[in-house]
Amino acid sequence: MNQEKILNVLETAYQKGKAVAPYGNVATYIPELGKADKNNLGISIFTVGGQKYNVGDTDRRFTIQSISKIISLVLALEHLGFDKVFSKVGMEPSGEAFNSLVELDLNSNKPFNPMINSGALTVSSLLLPEFSFEEMTEYARKVCLDSEIEMNEAVFQSEMSNVSRNRAIAYLLESKGIIENDVEKSLELYTKMCSLNVTAESLANFGMILAADGINPANGERLISAQAVKIAKTIMLTCGMYDGSGEFAVYVGIPTKSGVGGGLLSVADYKMGIGVYGPSLDEKGNCIAGRPVLEYLSKELGLHIFDRKRI
Amino acid sequence: MNQEKILNVLETAYQKGKAVAPYGNVATYIPELGKADKNNLGISIFTVGGQKYNVGDTDRRFTIQSISKIISLVLALEHLGFDKVFSKVGMEPSGEAFNSLVELDLNSNKPFNPMINSGALTVSSLLLPEFSFEEMTEYARKVCLDSEIEMNEAVFQSEMSNVSRNRAIAYLLESKGIIENDVEKSLELYTKMCSLNVTAESLANFGMILAADGINPANGERLISAQAVKIAKTIMLTCGMYDGSGEFAVYVGIPTKSGVGGGLLSVADYKMGIGVYGPSLDEKGNCIAGRPVLEYLSKELGLHIFDRKRI
Amino acid sequence: MNQEKILNVLETAYQKGKAVAPYGNVATYIPELGKADKNNLGISIFTVGGQKYNVGDTDRRFTIQSISKIISLVLALEHLGFDKVFSKVGMEPSGEAFNSLVELDLNSNKPFNPMINSGALTVSSLLLPEFSFEEMTEYARKVCLDSEIEMNEAVFQSEMSNVSRNRAIAYLLESKGIIENDVEKSLELYTKMCSLNVTAESLANFGMILAADGINPANGERLISAQAVKIAKTIMLTCGMYDGSGEFAVYVGIPTKSGVGGGLLSVADYKMGIGVYGPSLDEKGNCIAGRPVLEYLSKELGLHIFDRKRI
Amino acid sequence: MNQEKILNVLETAYQKGKAVAPYGNVATYIPELGKADKNNLGISIFTVGGQKYNVGDTDRRFTIQSISKIISLVLALEHLGFDKVFSKVGMEPSGEAFNSLVELDLNSNKPFNPMINSGALTVSSLLLPEFSFEEMTEYARKVCLDSEIEMNEAVFQSEMSNVSRNRAIAYLLESKGIIENDVEKSLELYTKMCSLNVTAESLANFGMILAADGINPANGERLISAQAVKIAKTIMLTCGMYDGSGEFAVYVGIPTKSGVGGGLLSVADYKMGIGVYGPSLDEKGNCIAGRPVLEYLSKELGLHIFDRKRI
Repeated sequence: MNQEKILNVLETAYQKGKAVAPYGNVATYIPELGKADKNNLGISIFTVGGQKYNVGDTDRRFTIQSISKIISLVLALEHLGFDKVFSKVGMEPSGEAFNSLVELDLNSNKPFNPMINSGALTVSSLLLPEFSFEEMTEYARKVCLDSEIEMNEAVFQSEMSNVSRNRAIAYLLESKGIIENDVEKSLELYTKMCSLNVTAESLANFGMILAADGINPANGERLISAQAVKIAKTIMLTCGMYDGSGEFAVYVGIPTKSGVGGGLLSVADYKMGIGVYGPSLDEKGNCIAGRPVLEYLSKELGLHIFDRKRI
Repeated sequence: MNQEKILNVLETAYQKGKAVAPYGNVATYIPELGKADKNNLGISIFTVGGQKYNVGDTDRRFTIQSISKIISLVLALEHLGFDKVFSKVGMEPSGEAFNSLVELDLNSNKPFNPMINSGALTVSSLLLPEFSFEEMTEYARKVCLDSEIEMNEAVFQSEMSNVSRNRAIAYLLESKGIIENDVEKSLELYTKMCSLNVTAESLANFGMILAADGINPANGERLISAQAVKIAKTIMLTCGMYDGSGEFAVYVGIPTKSGVGGGLLSVADYKMGIGVYGPSLDEKGNCIAGRPVLEYLSKELGLHIFDRKRI
Repeated sequence: MNQEKILNVLETAYQKGKAVAPYGNVATYIPELGKADKNNLGISIFTVGGQKYNVGDTDRRFTIQSISKIISLVLALEHLGFDKVFSKVGMEPSGEAFNSLVELDLNSNKPFNPMINSGALTVSSLLLPEFSFEEMTEYARKVCLDSEIEMNEAVFQSEMSNVSRNRAIAYLLESKGIIENDVEKSLELYTKMCSLNVTAESLANFGMILAADGINPANGERLISAQAVKIAKTIMLTCGMYDGSGEFAVYVGIPTKSGVGGGLLSVADYKMGIGVYGPSLDEKGNCIAGRPVLEYLSKELGLHIFDRKRI
Repeated sequence: MNQEKILNVLETAYQKGKAVAPYGNVATYIPELGKADKNNLGISIFTVGGQKYNVGDTDRRFTIQSISKIISLVLALEHLGFDKVFSKVGMEPSGEAFNSLVELDLNSNKPFNPMINSGALTVSSLLLPEFSFEEMTEYARKVCLDSEIEMNEAVFQSEMSNVSRNRAIAYLLESKGIIENDVEKSLELYTKMCSLNVTAESLANFGMILAADGINPANGERLISAQAVKIAKTIMLTCGMYDGSGEFAVYVGIPTKSGVGGGLLSVADYKMGIGVYGPSLDEKGNCIAGRPVLEYLSKELGLHIFDRKRI
């Protein structure tokens, strides 16, 4: 791709993101997240061909939050296998909010998918006997090509003081026989993974590796199996933006996962990873700048999964 | 009332109950309850005029289970007041099973009523800072005129090993700001109250006092305020048999509360209390003998709230 | 009962009703109902002993609306029998709004009860092959002791122009095999019955007959069977005020059915019928004056089902 | 692509489909569909490069059923525009069955997406004032390159005798102001479109045109706009297989729409259209042969949206 074109498009996308940031709000359900500056915005584009483009606050650390669900899912698929993971969690969009208990209670056998909290707690419980949190952190560092990822202790403590709803979900999962390991430790592991500090650049690296089928394009090293990557991308596309996933797929068409810390992980298949940081959120809890930024990038760079330009 | 007639009616009711007992099953969700003998049946009728009629296993101890919700509700109304209690829990039949989370999650401000688990856990949390479990046990002894009521430790431990669903409900209540006191202690208090050992006679005593407007007819002592009694009877009528309450009101028309231990507490207003013990349960978890027993008593003794004979 | 006391209590109740009428609104979902004067209020008390007390606009005609559900239910019980009626409709409070399709779609075998629209449409479909609308009108005149009851043609036409939701419910019932007769004719019959013009006095007459177990106290003639009356009163108590029935039972404790035309039919068992007309509605669609009026009457005259004074 | 390879893969896929056909059942909700032979199976693959591969019963006529929702959606997008269509219907997977009323009643503003019946009825109502059924049939012929498409009168009549549930949905839509045109005519238009007779070859043609961005590859003629095609493919991917769409996207990864007549329309983007006919259905109402056939084709020919082989 033409570097100058990408730079121009990225700059315009950044301006579009900055323009909407004042209309959102930082998360305030825990005090730690409320300290973010809603005018921060960073966008990183790392292509599978080795080009790196950054604009704005791309090296500022923030907590990964729900984007960690992808890391845990990939790790679980790699080490426990497809059958074990999907015996406990489905792969269907739910049509409901991320933290709903309704569907789970009515449809008792398993959570709809690993992107909603009930599904992600289930995946964490499966990983619990296999990996320590330190090992999972190390895995996050590996797939993000970022050796500086650490847990944000203040955010973790703040989250744990406000964890009643997720704890309710976790015990409901136990009552249905879906979580079979220690509930409190599963909940803690999940919350710790959400508290990892990343940057837009870490996410762009992770996205680039997913775009390259699980291989680090810089050295050809396979970091994730092709099958796990394919599944992760498909589920990001159908379930990654919660009950706004379908609309996002039409308008943007790039598999994307959001986190309430302001992060976005996007994968333009075989082309590039895109990492965004913008803590100003829309009413659904997604980075408010993300939609105009990614819609613009998709349109100008031909990144939609069904875009003509991709061939 | 004619004593001989009551005796004859009671004997026939008992035979009707015995006849259906084999078609039910004892509760098995915890091993301790599974030890009960499904052929046990006891019926006690204690009138406000001082007559006492017993047939069958009326002095056998069993755990009170959900019938304790009435004791806790009455105590909360007495000591915290109508407004405080009903600021946290409603008084509507829910149309759902006793342990549903669906309505609670969709209708967020409070549980439908104090007879479903979410409502009863809420009442327990309100009582937590006011009363120790020992004081509440003492209160149960007082209103049941039974100084031998004790907690069944084996059942309590068994319940606490199988409490995930109620724990999920309790944390969901905390997440909504409905439970404001310690969740684990509220859950423990609730479970301990469910583990109190009573007899059909204890329940008949309690029913008799509710029938007599809160006064012990033997000595004229007021044990419960008239207002608390009126509310308890009304809620037993509309919500006491879970999602079978409406049908029970039509067929039987006697305010009744069931417990999964096999107990039934019934109040024929201004006439008598009726206590039943029969651990063989129907598919909804109610004493299977209860419906034919109480329907027959209601019909023969004119106990339906809208029965002509009552005047 | 002391006549002067009743007169005084009624006068005060009337003043309490007048005081709240300005805070409600007349129904506006069809233009015809919007023409009512929200300051109108009438209360009639007709005792089983033959006393008649009226205050305010008790001879003003208004459409009976949902109160007709009681007339249809009683007629169906009389002529089709308990088993046939309740094979098609339940008797449980639903915990949902009167026109909900959710429970019906999820719980497929029958509507929760005959007081919600789905249940009343089912009852109408059962009556369809048995009675013409003229015969049903005649039956309404008989049980209300009011030979002038006629259908309000303007309201009927207005309702039929705004009937989509009820039509949807009716076809959903057909799709489930619950309505087996002609859907459009069932819907028309139901809507015509809702459009009958009554007065507060008609409703007090009907309530008095229900209070007297189905007998016209003036001449001893039985108009409705005792069993049908008992069922009707029980269902009015548990389901008559929609999703506010439980609260109404606690506060007022008098079986009551409301209609969006502003009417209230109340039955103080073995004592009196009470008819109210007040077209100013609260946010649930019940006559806004009804609650303070009936709560006051209940308290002062001891009409609560569990009130000490009744014996 | 290598023709011999495709032929071999197709033959094996066909055998896999034949092997499972006996385990499904033909639709029986209307007698006409019950007449189909469950051992029929036809698969057509038409590439954008002009190759045509057929195996089995590819020229047998069957009713298009829900696959017509794609034709109507595309036509609506072309002639009414994106904004008008999506002001009345969403684009989110619903997590519910195709004919659910629950979500629609709870989430009142619009149907989740145009692939469930409520959404498709809404699209039909939008098309009603713009096109006659004859014009819509003509459009179907055009995009399927099949001039012999006609309505199956017997199926249409049979469907109309069993249309209560869809009629209920349609009137619920009217009651919410979503359907603003004539309800009965909208329902009839929808049902007529479902009764069009197509073949596996017609569907492969339509799929090929969607794969080629809306252009007939044989002559370069644009039949559908690129934007409408992109939206249709995205919605097929996220919502095309009802509440099994997410799983289908993971396992198969080819945008596909099923019909209860036994048809499947699949689009391997920029590669080929695939049409399948197999009236033996699985328990969700999809052609039971479809999953093994398409999963095998996807794997062997690299058709998954995130498959490495596609570049």
